[in-house]
Amino acid sequence: MLSGHGDDTYKYKDIRINFSSNVYNHFCHDGLYAHLASRMDCIRNYPPPTPFELEKEIASLHGISPDEVIVTNGATEAIYLIAQAFSEYTSQILQPTFTEYEDACRLYGHEIGDGCWVLGDSGQQYRINAESQSRKENKNSASSRLSVPKTSHQHPSPNTYQLIWLCNPNNPTGQVIPKPILESAIASHPDTIFIIDESYAPFTMQPLVSTSMSGAKNVLLLHSMTKEFAIPGLRLGYITGSAALLSRVRKCRMPWAVNQLAIEAAHYLLAHKSDYTLDLPALMAERERMARELSDIDGVTVYPSDTHILLCRIEGTTAAKLKDYLVNNYGILIRDASNFRGLDEHYFRIAVQTPEEDNQLLNILKEWRN
Amino acid sequence: MLSGHGDDTYKYKDIRINFSSNVYNHFCHDGLYAHLASRMDCIRNYPPPTPFELEKEIASLHGISPDEVIVTNGATEAIYLIAQAFSEYTSQILQPTFTEYEDACRLYGHEIGDGCWVLGDSGQQYRINAESQSRKENKNSASSRLSVPKTSHQHPSPNTYQLIWLCNPNNPTGQVIPKPILESAIASHPDTIFIIDESYAPFTMQPLVSTSMSGAKNVLLLHSMTKEFAIPGLRLGYITGSAALLSRVRKCRMPWAVNQLAIEAAHYLLAHKSDYTLDLPALMAERERMARELSDIDGVTVYPSDTHILLCRIEGTTAAKLKDYLVNNYGILIRDASNFRGLDEHYFRIAVQTPEEDNQLLNILKEWRN
Repeated sequence: MLSGHGDDTYKYKDIRINFSSNVYNHFCHDGLYAHLASRMDCIRNYPPPTPFELEKEIASLHGISPDEVIVTNGATEAIYLIAQAFSEYTSQILQPTFTEYEDACRLYGHEIGDGCWVLGDSGQQYRINAESQSRKENKNSASSRLSVPKTSHQHPSPNTYQLIWLCNPNNPTGQVIPKPILESAIASHPDTIFIIDESYAPFTMQPLVSTSMSGAKNVLLLHSMTKEFAIPGLRLGYITGSAALLSRVRKCRMPWAVNQLAIEAAHYLLAHKSDYTLDLPALMAERERMARELSDIDGVTVYPSDTHILLCRIEGTTAAKLKDYLVNNYGILIRDASNFRGLDEHYFRIAVQTPEEDNQLLNILKEWRN
Repeated sequence: MLSGHGDDTYKYKDIRINFSSNVYNHFCHDGLYAHLASRMDCIRNYPPPTPFELEKEIASLHGISPDEVIVTNGATEAIYLIAQAFSEYTSQILQPTFTEYEDACRLYGHEIGDGCWVLGDSGQQYRINAESQSRKENKNSASSRLSVPKTSHQHPSPNTYQLIWLCNPNNPTGQVIPKPILESAIASHPDTIFIIDESYAPFTMQPLVSTSMSGAKNVLLLHSMTKEFAIPGLRLGYITGSAALLSRVRKCRMPWAVNQLAIEAAHYLLAHKSDYTLDLPALMAERERMARELSDIDGVTVYPSDTHILLCRIEGTTAAKLKDYLVNNYGILIRDASNFRGLDEHYFRIAVQTPEEDNQLLNILKEWRN
């Protein structure tokens, strides 16, 4: 664990509005809270060493076999287990993205190369280059990543990456790789394992690689119940994909990694999914409005997004200073995105909230610019 | 994760009395439950990537520095992190003991040798042999481990084990290595790291290596809040010891491994320790009574213990059959201890409960024998 993260509310008192986390914080959890309170006695006993009942339930939900599911202590454990199961493999990570793929790969001795997502170019927004190339260690030189790359669909060579990690929709850009292009990359590189983190799947209307499609032998999909149900404090994620790949991941598991309250919550949430439906068209419309109005502010650039999160860039100050200003004066938390690989100190990320909350941020930024 | 464990209540319905877990299940958790219910909103936010506030609180409690503490997702995560931090080291594990030391060491490529605890020999109950020897793969031949060994205190040689793992008090024997002997072994092997799992510390009156003493540069102590406060469902443990060793362990951590309800529980429990005091002399006296009465049953051998857990051996049947009989007819769960290295199918383990509950087990066993 090398880098900083969003949702650092624990560092501050009196956060009124939290734009820094990608979790959608407007679900009503009353039913869940009451359920957990009624099941509190479960903490007196060990959880099952692996949450096999929950794995069966999730498998049935997706119409797959239980050996195609591994429930984890948050999607983060999934990332670390996969990196461990494929220790010292060569990995390509599409950047800028969630930092834990790289941290996990480094911990387990992977040779790492970057692909890139291209910000603000609607024609070619990403590069999946399965061919290995030596890593250029220019962490903060965004410019070199912003040039328009060629998407590669060549056949695998001895230098082909063994793993490709991508977050889809991506964090921090919110962008989705068009499904046909991703599926074609998967099909044309059967010897490369695609680890596709779909933690943000509930927050996009773009089609994604689905769990049932992923019958492909070279795909592992990461899912975050944390994000889907807004329960990051409980830690709950899962992997779906090829049973053969997962049997390798399974060997790296420690027992009791998933706590019993998270398991209880998962059973409840899967049975009450209808209480957690999002008005996605409304959220996407609000994202569009927010992006438009932010772009109208002098010196603010907003990058295209397919989800509720927006990557932005501010000129004339740094994201760190903007964050301090907002938190100290208004109790508003944003994500300083300068520590994403390929981004610099001017990038910040926000997750769209309610129109009223979004307007508060817009008005403060407009006033501050004037 | 290779082997079976106790507290497998999740496999059964209607367990009335659970002798299978080493957790003391008679604390009143009403205050904790109410506290957690009142703090439920914490699951809406991420925990801190590492629970640093809790680490500070625990450090202050032990009179050590925060860099001498790592809080973990149960003591199990501590075991796996240490095995990972010292990947491919040579490890000696005092057997029979908790299986996770070996599972973790195997996962991280350690070369493993066994020492042994000797059952039923009050003179020399254990062997810490820091000198490396090739592992004899006779998993179930208890007899070879029961011979009286010589405790070794020679100076380290090129073949000295780099790590020694011991559970003290030990699971499943309940035995404690006399403190002067353990301290002398630590002092005379400065190049060997002693990983001492004190998860059962709250359940013995024997003196143990204390956290403050462990200023020794070659000691890591494992602590289980799970066991101390009877909250195994929440997952909470910690390591104390040399900051230099722990800085190495810290590098292997993933973020958010400890869930926020566990953190909330820990703060509450440390502030309400007085609600969780055990009448240890009474529990030890009950252990003595239980051991005596069990020994009086034909064909049952009870091994000496310094804690509330008792390792037993039954002739004329197997632990698995006894377990089935008890669970199916009486809703009583015991631990089939046959999968501990060095033990065979006749060993079972129980944790002493209330005198009334213990009497139920005694009466059933007596009747069953007749």
